[in-house]
Amino acid sequence: MQTPNTIDEAFANIARKNPRINALVDVISNPNTGVSLKAKMPGKAYQYWTMAVKSNIAVQGLPHTAGIGAYRHRIANEDAFCVARLRDAEMTIVGMANMEEAALGAVTDNPHFGKTHHPHQYGFTAGGSSGGSAAAIAAGMARAALGTDTMGSCRIPAAYCGVVGFKPSYGRISVHGVEPLSRRLDHVGVIANTVADVRAVTSIIAVFDAACADCRVFDAISEVGKTSTWRRLSVLDAVARATLSAEVRAAYEHALVRLKQAGFELTERVFNQEAVTAARRAGLIICEAELANSLAEILKSGGEGVSIFLRDMIAFGAAKSAPQLAVAHARIDNAELILRAQLDGTDAIFWPTTPQTAFAFSAPVPANQADFTCLANFTGAPAISIPARVTEGALPVGFQLMSPTGSDENILALAEEIESLLSPSLPNGVST
Amino acid sequence: MQTPNTIDEAFANIARKNPRINALVDVISNPNTGVSLKAKMPGKAYQYWTMAVKSNIAVQGLPHTAGIGAYRHRIANEDAFCVARLRDAEMTIVGMANMEEAALGAVTDNPHFGKTHHPHQYGFTAGGSSGGSAAAIAAGMARAALGTDTMGSCRIPAAYCGVVGFKPSYGRISVHGVEPLSRRLDHVGVIANTVADVRAVTSIIAVFDAACADCRVFDAISEVGKTSTWRRLSVLDAVARATLSAEVRAAYEHALVRLKQAGFELTERVFNQEAVTAARRAGLIICEAELANSLAEILKSGGEGVSIFLRDMIAFGAAKSAPQLAVAHARIDNAELILRAQLDGTDAIFWPTTPQTAFAFSAPVPANQADFTCLANFTGAPAISIPARVTEGALPVGFQLMSPTGSDENILALAEEIESLLSPSLPNGVST
Repeated sequence: MQTPNTIDEAFANIARKNPRINALVDVISNPNTGVSLKAKMPGKAYQYWTMAVKSNIAVQGLPHTAGIGAYRHRIANEDAFCVARLRDAEMTIVGMANMEEAALGAVTDNPHFGKTHHPHQYGFTAGGSSGGSAAAIAAGMARAALGTDTMGSCRIPAAYCGVVGFKPSYGRISVHGVEPLSRRLDHVGVIANTVADVRAVTSIIAVFDAACADCRVFDAISEVGKTSTWRRLSVLDAVARATLSAEVRAAYEHALVRLKQAGFELTERVFNQEAVTAARRAGLIICEAELANSLAEILKSGGEGVSIFLRDMIAFGAAKSAPQLAVAHARIDNAELILRAQLDGTDAIFWPTTPQTAFAFSAPVPANQADFTCLANFTGAPAISIPARVTEGALPVGFQLMSPTGSDENILALAEEIESLLSPSLPNGVST
Repeated sequence: MQTPNTIDEAFANIARKNPRINALVDVISNPNTGVSLKAKMPGKAYQYWTMAVKSNIAVQGLPHTAGIGAYRHRIANEDAFCVARLRDAEMTIVGMANMEEAALGAVTDNPHFGKTHHPHQYGFTAGGSSGGSAAAIAAGMARAALGTDTMGSCRIPAAYCGVVGFKPSYGRISVHGVEPLSRRLDHVGVIANTVADVRAVTSIIAVFDAACADCRVFDAISEVGKTSTWRRLSVLDAVARATLSAEVRAAYEHALVRLKQAGFELTERVFNQEAVTAARRAGLIICEAELANSLAEILKSGGEGVSIFLRDMIAFGAAKSAPQLAVAHARIDNAELILRAQLDGTDAIFWPTTPQTAFAFSAPVPANQADFTCLANFTGAPAISIPARVTEGALPVGFQLMSPTGSDENILALAEEIESLLSPSLPNGVST
């Protein structure tokens, strides 16, 4: 656990670790050391809480790049709605976190802003697309971070880095001021070392924003939380378990034992791999088609500052016809049936967040990184990744809880209970 | 008011009026006269309630045409979910109601199944796309009817025909067994002579269907209803009022006086015509792109049984690119902001359902038929059209109530209160 206890501690960790792992791409000067941050963020005292913000979320006066080189010098004119809520709560923003280019991927090997290295294993990915946010938390550079999550982009890097990543119900956190990837799938999420910290930040930023068309009215999330009454968990069937890497499978089997000991009722549910793969591809096409619109100006004028890799992906989606996009949306609609089948008769899904642990940048990128996470985006359901204890020196493993749309308070309560069962105790900065 | 008091009365009205107005395109034999309907619908007694069902909703053993000639001989293998609920409630289905071809339009001048004439004015439209359903109710052929509503298709014909048309919240009634137009916009709706009858049918069919991905969990709608506590109504601004036909404007001004007398607080809200027009066009493109998929087989083999008019519309949507469809979806997303602006500070919108009364088939089709109705489809909000008293011999005028998503019970209660204020008293079958 790397939670910084003071603002100075956060900035000390940034100074010591960021040059190597590149979690933050724009670092604010420590307001405590006299550099004039107040000029940039007027009118606010600086409280204990330190926050990193993903680069696709606008922070007034700082670059709003979304990981896209063409936006390197785009300075945000105003705060995103969620950032404004952090300011209202007198939190200190320490800097902008690195991310996958345009948030479309889960490795954070950014062609414009560089790789974000895993805080415990240099040369390995921290995951993505909110890789910088998760790495910053695991390295103690901030107490919590904002990320975004379109197919798993908060939970995947949280799992790889051994921290907590939460994607609430669709529409709970305003996306006003967030660079869009896909309006239907985009969510703002929160990353921190503990569920309690995630809940605290969520309770502050999950406020209805009447100016955000995608925002929905929900009951407020309490800062203190409640005791979970959920005892029935959906767990992976044997076939799906077989697709897990050895490390994840071992941690998963161990976790199931702990859950049974704690009195949870576990029910196997079949993972519909084929339907999820089809839906995941559909989700990509939806993102690509929308990026073709949001980046239209840049692409029209030659695409400078957009990688060839991203341009190719966008071209793939842009070449689809309207009826083909309609088919993609229908696949996403039908994901609701997959989620219902997985939840059937249980309160929540308890599954690994990812089928594998973090991998070397030199290794091929697994196609199934988002297989367990994307359903929450397709359906709007809340989902949270919590870390499990692993042996000293091993890479972290994360477990995901997913529950019906709107049950954010319940999933946070359940996550806090299971978090203590799995007793995360990660090596501190093993190789940073 | 034409509500048939017995099954015999409904079938007598069908025999007398349907040959002329063509509300029903497939008529069941009266089960009371000994023709073996029980063979088609086994195991059920025949209760008082008589129901007409729009031709795009599957009734086992009957043609499931969706108004498309190519489906003239497509017999439904099973009931739509909502039809099965009617059967469970021992209701009698009297036949399949005529509709606009593929539900894409609001006139019900069907190239394959003929025109549905206005029950009080031969040669005039009954509206659409659920024109047959509304005309059947106004002509006393059934106590209630099922329709569908993608941009106003239950409420527009209900307004033209002087009956009640209700489109509940998105996802409240399963669309399983309903020929899709657009998954995002399609709703099953209910048409009857009174709000009480609409509520009774809705309470029966608005049951969560786990097999329908688009269905959402809501509290049940009670059969008895409740007393409305809503007093604040949004009403049209002066500019928008000016776009109403003289008949509708007169009825509207009269209705406002009645509402004020009854203690309602009326607040003018600006109608954003430009944004609504853009969203309406976007909605059409979404429908056309989806129809290109659902009718792909037929269109590929020459398109026989699909009118040239519909083929042209589909070709228009099909020629759009995926990014263009994404823009259309974004326009629909933003309709939520228009609705919020209209509802701001009030409980519900009270507006005319349509800017005009029914018109002659020979007259040009007004472009703004769905201007006041489509927002409810774009946002998922519940909306109901109720008839107002008009002078003897005049064509009916309908008023629409729209309220936030999920407030179906409240909007029904409000509609029942206002229904009695507006005291509909239509001429009985003036020219049928």
